[in-house]
Formats: sequence, C-alpha cells, structure tokens
Amino acid sequence: MTLASLRETVYETLMALPENDLVRGTSGNVSGREGDRVVIKPSGVDYDELSPENLVVVNMNGEVVEGDLKPSVDTGAHLHIYRENEELGGIIHTHSTYATAFAAAGRELPVYVTELADTFGESIPVSDYVPPGTEAIGEEFAKHTGEGKFQGLLMKNHGLFAAGKEPGDALKAALHIEHSAKISSIAEDLGTPEEIPDEEAQRLNQEYLEGYGQE
Amino acid sequence: MTLASLRETVYETLMALPENDLVRGTSGNVSGREGDRVVIKPSGVDYDELSPENLVVVNMNGEVVEGDLKPSVDTGAHLHIYRENEELGGIIHTHSTYATAFAAAGRELPVYVTELADTFGESIPVSDYVPPGTEAIGEEFAKHTGEGKFQGLLMKNHGLFAAGKEPGDALKAALHIEHSAKISSIAEDLGTPEEIPDEEAQRLNQEYLEGYGQE
Amino acid sequence: MTLASLRETVYETLMALPENDLVRGTSGNVSGREGDRVVIKPSGVDYDELSPENLVVVNMNGEVVEGDLKPSVDTGAHLHIYRENEELGGIIHTHSTYATAFAAAGRELPVYVTELADTFGESIPVSDYVPPGTEAIGEEFAKHTGEGKFQGLLMKNHGLFAAGKEPGDALKAALHIEHSAKISSIAEDLGTPEEIPDEEAQRLNQEYLEGYGQE
Amino acid sequence: MTLASLRETVYETLMALPENDLVRGTSGNVSGREGDRVVIKPSGVDYDELSPENLVVVNMNGEVVEGDLKPSVDTGAHLHIYRENEELGGIIHTHSTYATAFAAAGRELPVYVTELADTFGESIPVSDYVPPGTEAIGEEFAKHTGEGKFQGLLMKNHGLFAAGKEPGDALKAALHIEHSAKISSIAEDLGTPEEIPDEEAQRLNQEYLEGYGQE
Repeated sequence: MTLASLRETVYETLMALPENDLVRGTSGNVSGREGDRVVIKPSGVDYDELSPENLVVVNMNGEVVEGDLKPSVDTGAHLHIYRENEELGGIIHTHSTYATAFAAAGRELPVYVTELADTFGESIPVSDYVPPGTEAIGEEFAKHTGEGKFQGLLMKNHGLFAAGKEPGDALKAALHIEHSAKISSIAEDLGTPEEIPDEEAQRLNQEYLEGYGQE
Repeated sequence: MTLASLRETVYETLMALPENDLVRGTSGNVSGREGDRVVIKPSGVDYDELSPENLVVVNMNGEVVEGDLKPSVDTGAHLHIYRENEELGGIIHTHSTYATAFAAAGRELPVYVTELADTFGESIPVSDYVPPGTEAIGEEFAKHTGEGKFQGLLMKNHGLFAAGKEPGDALKAALHIEHSAKISSIAEDLGTPEEIPDEEAQRLNQEYLEGYGQE
Repeated sequence: MTLASLRETVYETLMALPENDLVRGTSGNVSGREGDRVVIKPSGVDYDELSPENLVVVNMNGEVVEGDLKPSVDTGAHLHIYRENEELGGIIHTHSTYATAFAAAGRELPVYVTELADTFGESIPVSDYVPPGTEAIGEEFAKHTGEGKFQGLLMKNHGLFAAGKEPGDALKAALHIEHSAKISSIAEDLGTPEEIPDEEAQRLNQEYLEGYGQE
Repeated sequence: MTLASLRETVYETLMALPENDLVRGTSGNVSGREGDRVVIKPSGVDYDELSPENLVVVNMNGEVVEGDLKPSVDTGAHLHIYRENEELGGIIHTHSTYATAFAAAGRELPVYVTELADTFGESIPVSDYVPPGTEAIGEEFAKHTGEGKFQGLLMKNHGLFAAGKEPGDALKAALHIEHSAKISSIAEDLGTPEEIPDEEAQRLNQEYLEGYGQE
C-alpha cells in the first residue's frame, strides 16, 4: 500500500469514529502503519477539519517526516505497540462510553455475548492505571494482548486501545468492544449473565475468522 | 410477488436496521421467502454496500441459485425456520442492544407494556444457548414460537430472531421487542413493574391484529 | 385558525416526534382542535408517509368529516379529553422510553429538576391500568390533571398522554416529561435525589409561564 | 474581536449544543463577552430560528444595547459570573442529561476518568439549590470555581453552568463534563470505580493545557 492510500484509509477510519458515536469533540485517534512509516491524527484537531492531506506521517522513532501539524499526544504509545508486534497495521484509541465505563470500574469485559466471542475468543483485559501519552501504554498493551487479528485493551480510568492487521480491523475491534460493553452493563442490571465457556468462545472465534464474510 | 420485488422488500428491510439502530457494523441479517426461494443478505457486507441486486437467492436446501456472493452464515437457521412454518415470509436476526441484554441475562422479556402485548400477546421466550450459524437455532425457534403474525425468540448469549408473514412484519416484531426491552430494563430499575395479565395481553393482541392500521 | 392551517400545525408536531426520538415505527399520535373539529393522525401510517393532506378530520362524536383514512385508534380518548376541558387545543400520545418506564413501574414522575417544575409546577401523575383505545383513557386524564397550560398523565403499563392549549404546547409537555424522566431515572441510580418543595415548584411554574420566551 | 465576530462565535457555539445532544427544545443558552458587552441567546427561541443577527447584546448592567428580542432569563447569572472573573469570555448553561442527573442527586462529579482530569484537574462541584434566573447562580459559581481555563458547576436540581476563556472553551468544558458524567454513572453500576489521585489529576491537567493540540 502506498502512503497516499494509507492516508485515505486512516482518514476513513477516523471519520467512522464520530459516525459510530465512538468519540466526542477532538478526542480519540487512529493510526495506520506501512513499512517503517505511521500515518496518525494530528493533535487536538476537530474531526470535521481532518483530511487525508493534513494527517501526520512519522517514522518509527516518532520523528515527523511529512506534515505541518503536531501528531497525536498518543503517538509514542502507538509506535510502541507497532514495534512490539510486527503483524499490526492499525490502532485506534477512544474514550467510547461503555468500554471506558468498564475501564473506570477497573474491570475486564466478560464474554457474555457471541459478538465478542466471534472477534476475540476471550474477554477483553484491563490494565493497571498508567499515565496517558506515555510509552507505558504500549507496554501494557504488549503485555496483555496476544496475536489475534483483533486486539483490545481497556486502560484503567482512561479508555480503550484497539488494534488489528489494518485500520479497518481496529475499527471492527473497537465497535464490537463498545457494543458488547453496552449489552453487558445492561445484562448485569437485568440479572446474572453467564459467560460463554472458554472453549466455545475460542471455537466461535476460529469459525468467525475462517467462515465469516466474502472469499 | 416476483423475486425482483422480494429483493426490493428485503433490501428496504435491511436498510431499516441501521436507520433504527438495530445493528452496528456488518452484523444482523434479513431474509424473505417467496415459494421455494429465499432472498438473504450476503455475509459480512457493509450495509451501505448492499443493493437489491447483490442480495443472494438460495433454494430451500441452501444452494445459491442467484448471486455471486456467499450468503449469510445464518442461512441454515433461516431456512430451518421457514421449513417448519409455512406461514412465515420474513426473518430478521439482530444483536440489538436491549433484546440482546435480556438474552445475555438468560431472561425472557415480560409483558410490562401494551406495546409488546399489542404485537405478541405474550412474553418473548429465551432459548438455551445453541451455537450461532447452526440449524439448532431454527429448531429452538420452532420449539418456542407459535403461529402469530409476529414472532420472536431471544437466543441466549447471542441476540434476537424475529419473524412474520413478510419482512415488514419481522421488522415490526424486532422494533417492538427492542423498544419494549429498553423500557422494561429501565422500569425494573425504577421499581417493581407488574406484568399485564395474560388474558388482557391476548385481548390487546387480538384487537391490534383486527383493528390497528388501515383496512 | 383555519382547518387547513391546523392540518399544517398537527403535521409539524407529528414530524417532531420521530425527530426528537419520542416515537418508533408507526406508534404515537397527535391531534389538534379548532372549534368542533379535531385533526388527528390516521391509524398505523408511517411517519414518513404522513402529509398535512392525509390527516383525518373528525367531529366531536368521532365521525370522519374529511379524509379517506381511518383515524387513530386513540381518537375516542382524544375526544373525551377535549370534551372535558374546553381550554385544550392539542394532545400527544407516545410510548416515549423513559416516561413509559415510569408508567410501567406504576410510578408518578417526581419533581427532581427545575425543567419539570418550570412547565408543570408539580409531579406528573400515573393512572391505574385502563385498556388502550377506550374512553377510559380520557376519563383518567380528566380525573388526574388540572387546568395548567401544560398537562401530562402517565398511563400505567402503556405510555404518556400530554396536552396543552395548542399542539406545540403538548409537544413541549411531552419533551419535558421524557427528558425529566430520563434524568430522574439516572439520578435515582446515583443517589437519593430530593424533590423540589411544592411551593418552590409552583413559584417556578408561575415565573416560567409569565417570564419565559418572547413578548 | 469585533462584536460581529463574537456574534458568529456565540451562534456557532449555540448550534453545537443540539448537535452534541446537550439541549432539547429551547432550553440552554450561551453567551460570549468582549470588553463590556455580552452577546447572549434570546429567551425561549428555537435553535433552528437562531442566527448571528438575532442574538441579543447587553451591557454589564443587563441593559439591551442591540437587538429586538428579550435576552435569556439567565442573563443576570451570566453577567454576575463575568463580573466576578475578568478572565472568562464564554459561558454555557444546559440541562444536559447526565450532568443534570448528578446535580439532581446533589452529587459532585468525581474524577474517575482522565478525560475529566485533562480539562479540569479536579472533581466538578455541586452547589446548593438556588432559584434559576437569579444572581444567586452567579454567586454560587464564583464561590465554587477557581481560575482554570475550563470551569464548571453542577447546580442542584437544575443543571450545568460551564465557562472558559472563550465560548469554545465553555463548550469543551460542557462536553467533557457531560460525557464523563455518563461514563461515571455506568461505571458505578459496574463496580466501585476509584478516583484518579489529586496529584495525578492536576499533573494531567497541566500537561493537557501545555501539550495538547496545535502550536
């Protein structure tokens, strides 16, 4: 993929965040990697002022190689995650409401619904509190997540980091986590939901990765 | 109804799902039956990439008879439901938030509101857990539902299957279940709601089927 | 006001219901009165198929005097309310989510917020269960409400009837009740909210009626 | 800034309120200050009937110096806040749902999430009940808030006042408070969230003011 087309992909993924109610105001960010270049949202810019052209390109040391704007304050965290896992090509950070509520309560997200089992095959872990805007975020992410196509970590008192092979996978991860978190919080109000057993959750995940969608 | 016009109907019903906040991302599906043909959503395709033309037509054995795309992974479940009940002409599957929360809690949806009594005349049952994408879903549906114009089943840890004489009825069933589930979860927070007695619920259903709407 | 302009007003008020998330599907209705004529929504028609022209005009006995469609199943209730209170010129019925949750829990809506005190000056009462589509609804309304510019009644296990001097007042009543009900249900989750004392609530209502808005 | 451009800014901030679901109907208001002039929303006018031209300009005594409409009933409160703090240039008042739920419960908003720590560095206080539309609101605001770039006060049984160096800062304050209040109410449902310690919250605030955004 050329950098120009990665800019397009990251831009489209960014615009999907407000459309899907995953961000408010200027918060949240998306990046995509191609080789040793990362395209990322500029810091504190409104979503309706973004364009493929004003996104920032940095190298793996965080130096700006294209663009006039300052990159996201979370750039260091994104880069750390990419360096730790060669397979990842897209990362999203949001304060989406229900995922962040689980993070604020310091709780992992249980596998109450097949929607979460399909994409992850297991619960979404929660980290200890680490300061936003630091590499410690990346360290927590590497520590808590594995090698799946879709990955996610709830950052205590903070929000969600979701990742995938490409930005669209990170978006799918973030959407499924947020929606499952909303269903789960209501289900706990209604009674005592039971988790899908580990083995079945992993089987659903396998089946989803192999059988869902086209091709 | 011609297959071409069934394609239009299924397409319109599909587009009503995101408009009414019943689905996120690519999840959820709709089918419609005409004779021994079923029109159904292709697997894993975004709603804004759907058209009447790219829907898939299968026969009652699940063989694709028109279309280049793979049909929904839930096609087997839809076909089983149609085979068990000759009267049904439309089926919707969603993970709509509040219906799925009741399903995750393993609870049937009680008749707290006339809106649910009108369309169903009784509570919405919940099945045991059965694996998504299997005919077992269809078996559960046949086991738990009756002969009404509007039908629904909460699939434990999974979501909702709703059905009706035609796709528009299935949509109405899904909308009333989701909205009633939302009202009910809040009502239980607020106090101890009483169910509408069986006899009155059935009377409301009769009256609604006979007296509501035009003609 | 001419009947033609009342049709416009009732139509605009109807369209405000889905825009403000007060209705789903075809449920809910609005009427307006001018002299001995009432303009009302036809039964079971989708909101996006409504127009000022296809609304139904009935006389005070419920006989259709203009229009080809069947009027709302709640027409009898609307007419009863108008007959009991000469001052009222607009009525709205909805199953709006939070107001209906209070109704399902069989609870009146307390005056936790100035927004409710401003428009009503007191709590919103809840009726016993009476069958929808009957004049008993109108009797309950007359029994529980007074002479204010804005009026509302929660119908147990059913929904909300709101009324006012004209359709726009009924809309304001329905909006303030629904929003106050949402705030109140969350506030009870968060702690033990105190009601605004009666005298202060009435003073706020007086002030609002005299001092808010233009002229 | 000229008064004409302040009118534009206040107008844009007003329109952001319904877009971000911070107001319903005609409620809520925004003002901006330039020297000894304050531009403010007219009382009881629908958001879609507002324009930069029909906003009202008052002097610091509340006398209308430009405009044909009556200013907001909260004008006295806004002016009091401006007089007490020379640094403030924008004020927003809303009944936004979750902030108002905390206010109805008579509770301050705790610092469960970095989003609130970033902008405020501390919890959002709650006042005693004081009558809306009076200068007592301004007195409570001056009593409870400090000198930060972003400020907010929950008015018991009423709603939120948010302020900042300019109207856009007040908007950011209102958005972060409402979203943090929503996350916090859900987090308390899910478990026992821990607050971010004071020192860390203040550090995050410092960092955000210095390092977030462009320039």
